[in-house]
Amino acid sequence: MTADLTALAATLPDGALLTDPDVTAGYRQDWAADPNAGTPLAVVRATCTEDVQAVMRWATAHRVPVVPRGAGSGLSGGSSAVDGGIVLTTEKMRAITVDPVTRVAVVQPGLLNAAVKRAVAEHGLWYPPDPSSFEICSIGGNAATNAGGLCCVKYGVTTDYVLGLQVVLADGTAVRLGGPRLKDVAGLSLTKLFVGSEGTLGVITEITLRLIPAQSPASTLVASFESVQDAADAVLAITRTMRPAMLEFMDQASINAVEDSVRMGLNRNARALLLAQSDAPGAAAAAEIATMVAACESHGATEVFATDDPEEGEAFTAARRAVFPAVQALGTLLLEDVGVPMDALPRLITGVEEIAGDCDVLICVVAHAGDGNTHPLIVFDPTDPGEVDRAHLAFGRVMDLAVALGGTITGEHGVGRLKRDWLPNQLGEDVMELTRRIKTALDPDGILNPGAILK
Amino acid sequence: MTADLTALAATLPDGALLTDPDVTAGYRQDWAADPNAGTPLAVVRATCTEDVQAVMRWATAHRVPVVPRGAGSGLSGGSSAVDGGIVLTTEKMRAITVDPVTRVAVVQPGLLNAAVKRAVAEHGLWYPPDPSSFEICSIGGNAATNAGGLCCVKYGVTTDYVLGLQVVLADGTAVRLGGPRLKDVAGLSLTKLFVGSEGTLGVITEITLRLIPAQSPASTLVASFESVQDAADAVLAITRTMRPAMLEFMDQASINAVEDSVRMGLNRNARALLLAQSDAPGAAAAAEIATMVAACESHGATEVFATDDPEEGEAFTAARRAVFPAVQALGTLLLEDVGVPMDALPRLITGVEEIAGDCDVLICVVAHAGDGNTHPLIVFDPTDPGEVDRAHLAFGRVMDLAVALGGTITGEHGVGRLKRDWLPNQLGEDVMELTRRIKTALDPDGILNPGAILK
Repeated sequence: MTADLTALAATLPDGALLTDPDVTAGYRQDWAADPNAGTPLAVVRATCTEDVQAVMRWATAHRVPVVPRGAGSGLSGGSSAVDGGIVLTTEKMRAITVDPVTRVAVVQPGLLNAAVKRAVAEHGLWYPPDPSSFEICSIGGNAATNAGGLCCVKYGVTTDYVLGLQVVLADGTAVRLGGPRLKDVAGLSLTKLFVGSEGTLGVITEITLRLIPAQSPASTLVASFESVQDAADAVLAITRTMRPAMLEFMDQASINAVEDSVRMGLNRNARALLLAQSDAPGAAAAAEIATMVAACESHGATEVFATDDPEEGEAFTAARRAVFPAVQALGTLLLEDVGVPMDALPRLITGVEEIAGDCDVLICVVAHAGDGNTHPLIVFDPTDPGEVDRAHLAFGRVMDLAVALGGTITGEHGVGRLKRDWLPNQLGEDVMELTRRIKTALDPDGILNPGAILK
Repeated sequence: MTADLTALAATLPDGALLTDPDVTAGYRQDWAADPNAGTPLAVVRATCTEDVQAVMRWATAHRVPVVPRGAGSGLSGGSSAVDGGIVLTTEKMRAITVDPVTRVAVVQPGLLNAAVKRAVAEHGLWYPPDPSSFEICSIGGNAATNAGGLCCVKYGVTTDYVLGLQVVLADGTAVRLGGPRLKDVAGLSLTKLFVGSEGTLGVITEITLRLIPAQSPASTLVASFESVQDAADAVLAITRTMRPAMLEFMDQASINAVEDSVRMGLNRNARALLLAQSDAPGAAAAAEIATMVAACESHGATEVFATDDPEEGEAFTAARRAVFPAVQALGTLLLEDVGVPMDALPRLITGVEEIAGDCDVLICVVAHAGDGNTHPLIVFDPTDPGEVDRAHLAFGRVMDLAVALGGTITGEHGVGRLKRDWLPNQLGEDVMELTRRIKTALDPDGILNPGAILK
């Protein structure tokens, strides 16, 4: 250990600073498995805000890059290690307090999303955002990426539930932004600026979450289609008139990957499947389900199944959440996360089919269809150099297609390092310049997650 | 007109630049009637984004302050004119296009909130945020202040509906942020940063709004109480268990001011009144109303009236909205807008009563009680210097009380110029410094609404 690192270790609890290469190797990559991830100088497992401050003060003094990391489940390489930098993980910071009268939870960033949901459920409350990875992703990572999920189509994304943050800035200053107030416009919307900033502006060390009363039991609909266009048209017919609590799309390859792994009895011959829920109270749920059944049938659904049994519905939802791991069994993945304005959803989905054909590569598509956010999963054999090239070509072409349709290169995963090169194409040079001005104002030495979002 | 102004006029449509003192005097103040408002050099009535760009380019070249202005209904002096500056009003920019498939509206900033609601209602859609002033305030001002309203307790505030913005920066560059995508995390959350920035970072020239299906007809409850504490306790009993579509509080002075002006038949002897709505679908509304009736009765309500007639309910809502103008008939007002975490609501409301007594001044209290956002209206006789002083003392003490209770000096009106001196007390010096860094990065010459939010 260098003298400098020894000085840092002295400011931290015993065992918080790790330099054993066998240990630090486990912190080089997140789930995106960025092949260009660097080798960190050290990993710090912070136990409290003061630890994070100590790291940032030291990093500023020594001009050392710091990559903040939650549970490492990111899908865009937002926490790929940087050569010679510190990986600062909040995985040990897992405290939570729930106030059922004020209806907020104050949470440390390392707590898993599922643990937040469980803790607040004990008070009859609900924290809605539900990334598919909710059992393994941290709430800090959710805030850093402004994570989405399945129920967001009705209940909104992470930023809609973040009332306040404690953030450690580049120089080690800890600031409190917002707080447990449902409405607060005092000063600039700094809380909202830090949500989704992917660790490039500061390190989140505490989050104040807005909670709502527990969700009503959901009724569920599963509809099969002979074409992806029909399914996408049915989605628009539904979202024009109502707000489902979930509206998910799976293509044939995804259906079969899931059936191969969990055997739900999904229709393997369907070209597309929609999975929708209503959590409207009382008899209103049946009315909403009936509206969605009618929309599916009038757009060519070949099979429609509905149930008001919450457990049966949850089994279908679990099947949908199982798509990522199920498709991973087929090969190495490039995970897309493109979104479009709702009216362009059919063109995006059929366009991805064309790209798969053109590039001669398998692309499984699952989508949070109700908000236009799709996940084309590009599957390739990493030992076949030609296929690797074609997969990367498809990866870029899908993003280009989304932008051409007025969409976004990332709906909920973040830009990280894997999508950084496509960001200027979406935002344009003036917005990139605006972004750099804010980055420079808050991180003048460029030590906070360098290479994420911006080059 | 100076040579410089003549040069500016030449870049604008005929009649857009106004210098007649009789005309420009009407643009010195907003509804806050800031006594320290300055005298502008000129007023520009922009007709399009390019006009705004022309003004900002000219202002940057000549280091002239620009105060952006919507409908002038602001309550914190956010658009008080600055001596020697330009007042840049967007009141002429009123175009709107509604896309019912994508379910967004693209709106120019000068369109009134009520006109936005009407235009989208033609497509069976709803833009929820509803400031009490919705018939006279502009959507641009709503975005600039992150305005709230009555239905926000269930449906959220302006920022929750702003998907995208076009903004003209200090140097005249026009940028597009976000867009008609329900989920988009590409880059920093710049859209959210500009919402609520009160014209200090840029001038909003176009807004892309998220719309939702039309609201179900609402059922309404009116409950009278013998003490404000009882009413506040009933509010907590309601918000712990459910999400009303509206939950408003009026104290006795407000009730009587309204009765004096609109004669609704409200109980003049009640010390406090709650007005609540449920818009749950079908039979669920009756269940929600029953829950609220029970909460009111178990907290000492002396009279409870419920109706499922939407028109009757709207009459009560209109009475609540009439409080500001009704109380204005009693004297000159200092309008408070303090909010607290829900558990502190009873202490805030009773504390305001004590301040009124201590300062020997009338304070009428109305509140968006369901989200802890209160409007103590301090009434004074401007010709009585002693009372003027006591009113201003009370104004500051109410904000101090809110901050001491963990609250905010402004829940929905904005800081503007009238609350600027109290902002550091809430945010602390480190957050003020962070705010200044962002302001300087985006407006290095300090020409955008100088004096608002920051000194």
